Amino acid sequence: MSEQNIEAAPADGSRLSRRRAITLAGVGVAGVAGVAAGATALVRGADHAAANDVAAGAVPFHGEHQAGITTPAQDRLHFVAFDVITKDRARLVALLQEWTAAAARMTAGRDAGLIGAVNGMPEAPPDDTGEALGLPPAQLTLTIGFGPMLFRDAQGRDRFGIADRRPPALADLPHFAGDALRPEISAGDICVQACANDPQVAVHAIRNLARIGMGVVSVRWSQLGFGRTSSTSRGQATPRNLFGFKDGTANLKAEDTGLLRDHLWAHPGDGPDWMTGGSYLVSRKIRMLIETWDRTPLAEQEQIVGRSKGAGAPLGKGDEFDEPDFAAKGEGGEPVIAETSHVRLAHPSQNNGARLLRRGYNFVDGSDGLGRLDAGLFFIAYQRDPRKQFVPIQTGLSRNDAMNEYLRHVSSALFACPPGVRDAADFWGRALFA
Amino acid sequence: MSEQNIEAAPADGSRLSRRRAITLAGVGVAGVAGVAAGATALVRGADHAAANDVAAGAVPFHGEHQAGITTPAQDRLHFVAFDVITKDRARLVALLQEWTAAAARMTAGRDAGLIGAVNGMPEAPPDDTGEALGLPPAQLTLTIGFGPMLFRDAQGRDRFGIADRRPPALADLPHFAGDALRPEISAGDICVQACANDPQVAVHAIRNLARIGMGVVSVRWSQLGFGRTSSTSRGQATPRNLFGFKDGTANLKAEDTGLLRDHLWAHPGDGPDWMTGGSYLVSRKIRMLIETWDRTPLAEQEQIVGRSKGAGAPLGKGDEFDEPDFAAKGEGGEPVIAETSHVRLAHPSQNNGARLLRRGYNFVDGSDGLGRLDAGLFFIAYQRDPRKQFVPIQTGLSRNDAMNEYLRHVSSALFACPPGVRDAADFWGRALFA
Ligand code: HEM
Ligand code: HEM
Repeated sequence: MSEQNIEAAPADGSRLSRRRAITLAGVGVAGVAGVAAGATALVRGADHAAANDVAAGAVPFHGEHQAGITTPAQDRLHFVAFDVITKDRARLVALLQEWTAAAARMTAGRDAGLIGAVNGMPEAPPDDTGEALGLPPAQLTLTIGFGPMLFRDAQGRDRFGIADRRPPALADLPHFAGDALRPEISAGDICVQACANDPQVAVHAIRNLARIGMGVVSVRWSQLGFGRTSSTSRGQATPRNLFGFKDGTANLKAEDTGLLRDHLWAHPGDGPDWMTGGSYLVSRKIRMLIETWDRTPLAEQEQIVGRSKGAGAPLGKGDEFDEPDFAAKGEGGEPVIAETSHVRLAHPSQNNGARLLRRGYNFVDGSDGLGRLDAGLFFIAYQRDPRKQFVPIQTGLSRNDAMNEYLRHVSSALFACPPGVRDAADFWGRALFA
Repeated sequence: MSEQNIEAAPADGSRLSRRRAITLAGVGVAGVAGVAAGATALVRGADHAAANDVAAGAVPFHGEHQAGITTPAQDRLHFVAFDVITKDRARLVALLQEWTAAAARMTAGRDAGLIGAVNGMPEAPPDDTGEALGLPPAQLTLTIGFGPMLFRDAQGRDRFGIADRRPPALADLPHFAGDALRPEISAGDICVQACANDPQVAVHAIRNLARIGMGVVSVRWSQLGFGRTSSTSRGQATPRNLFGFKDGTANLKAEDTGLLRDHLWAHPGDGPDWMTGGSYLVSRKIRMLIETWDRTPLAEQEQIVGRSKGAGAPLGKGDEFDEPDFAAKGEGGEPVIAETSHVRLAHPSQNNGARLLRRGYNFVDGSDGLGRLDAGLFFIAYQRDPRKQFVPIQTGLSRNDAMNEYLRHVSSALFACPPGVRDAADFWGRALFA
């Protein structure tokens, strides 16, 4: 094996050669048994890995908050919920450390680890699965969250000695009117949200985290989202959901610094210290009965949403970003924006000022066996305290929203997402397990 | 309603204003009951609709062959198989006509029909679902195929008077070793393959065809593919499948005119005339046991495939496009490319010269309930005669391919894809039902 085919394993994953990802020509000639024990490895991202860890198209991994929350919503999602299958706290903590290192590498556009045989271990499987070789970082973000059961299981047991660190805001969600939740695709001990502009990059990241976690965690459920349904930055055009309406218009946006402070990030004193700078994630898989919707007249659709389908303007107004006027009456005296419309019921004015940062994705999971597409919205919302935000808003919506006729909530989950990883010495969950 | 908000419905769908898609401001003020009976409609694609029907980023719909076969493989897939639920031949033919018109519009980057209330029918549901408003054509192609059961059902009945037109090449596929097919996601009377560079555009197209088909067809199964696994043109870089290997290297490509003539398109005399210029599509949903694969050493993975993981070169060679040398022996006398390797078994030299045009996509459908990702390859191959191409190749693979340990074929389908729609007077299946 020539020098040129050798790539040394960097000790901390932070220094990588800028040489092109190399090929393993020669392995075949040597035959399986003949693989040289000298190090050979493919590396991803060697071209674009810059000294400061941030390649073009890469979102910085380290920071005060986790990336993937206010990061302008990327186009594609792979969301996974894991069950922790070990009872061993040390193994779980070791995994969180390994994951953090892999996440830092992958979000920078690199492999999760070396792809070839590593020094002295020619028979070891690759440390990266390879399907993202040659792909750019694609704005990949990986965001972790801890579910209620990680703190105390269904039998009330303190599984990992962290029961007293469970944040009060991580209170189990109540049952909502109309909920049709399927337990096998709900909840979970740990979630990871992978967002990227290339689905192969998002899938690769989750798949490699699952690979690294073998024996410690197992995949409980996972969800692909093919198109974002929210904008989270004023620089983004508002996308459309599968009802054909613009979604994300009145969302909390990255630029709303003051609102984000009040509505998005956990503050000192809100709960345990380890969550300061973190945020709470609620996910709801919402099946949309698109065939029924498609038989509904346009004007009725608009009354249900409370906005026009074309421009996305509040009814009675002309521009998408006009403020809705909930007091306005039509010629017959009826409200221009119906009492049961989605935007009226979800609006801060109806919810004690509560706001959400929505970050959902459209999904199509094939057909439902009844001749219809199994499609809808994988709703994700971040917030400072679900008890004051998601819960009251969804309580109102679940009771009165005219849209409910076309919706089924089939999965639900809640996670506490810790603050950002500060530097190479820090890791996901360090303060929680300190 | 002002003049500016009015967009007349074009009689034949071919002439559309170039004005921007308009908004429906005012509907809300008028209230549901007050929608003016004057024509109001949103139109998609008014910006990019050129006089010749082909906008920038649009693939021509009309032609000798259907688009979506040799078209350079787009990034995303939505594939659907429909059951025909009517017994009425005339209704089926009328639907095929309607579908063809909608497909011509949508592939040109337009809506399937008007989105607003149409003249005199203010309470009618929109003729387009709206979620692709503002999106470009994204190279959308829609490719139709007819399954064996459309000609004669399971009871042997000639459902639509076309039993004698069933092509001999549309012979039911045999059972292959290891098949673990699930009938509910296999077969189908009619398929439509939607490929586009934006998944929202592909999903929108299938969803609107399903909407238009209500009462005549119902969705039997549908599959989303998030990333292409094949290149079908020499201009495309070879993508990677979920085993991390380049896929599509030795594929039939758009530029291979002579090979396409011999291996891809049905000829006069091959079977019934209506298929001349068409092609046969085999789809196989192949679950990949990626967790097991990920525990396999690199050199073993490469022996299984018969190519290197990095460059994708045949073992013993250095470049992706080098010809494999199946006679080469290693130092110990063993073949450099194993007898059981995938590329050896699939190679034309082992299969009487048979070749395929592969056009598959990666899928991840969540988790399998056993802690693993439900992921794999949605294999699609086009060919002149499956009896001489897919069947013998898959017979050899199913018996001897070392890759089988990591694969499960869970769905299978076969369709006869007619030639292209020639012009606005022609439609999908016209010659078949003539
Ligand atoms: C499939 C289900 C849903 C659909 C199709 C949907 C659709 C929409 C649409 C079209 C808008 C208007 C545009 C915008 O401001 O984004 C909107 C606004 C909003 N939605 Fe939803 N939504 C769904 C579920 C939910 C859920 C479950 C919640 C929270 C419990 C929620 C909370 C909100 C909020 C807070 C707003 C902004 C209201 C305002 O301040 O004007 N939505 N939604
Ligand atoms: C999940 C299942 C499969 C995987 C992961 C897979 C992967 C690959 C890979 C990596 C290559 C080499 C690169 C290339 O030339 O594209 C290849 C080649 C090929 N595969 Fe597959 N394949 C699968 C299933 C199939 C099936 C079911 C068939 C047909 C029955 C097939 C037919 C072929 C053919 C004809 C070639 C080209 C062989 C040559 O001429 O060198 N593959 N496949």
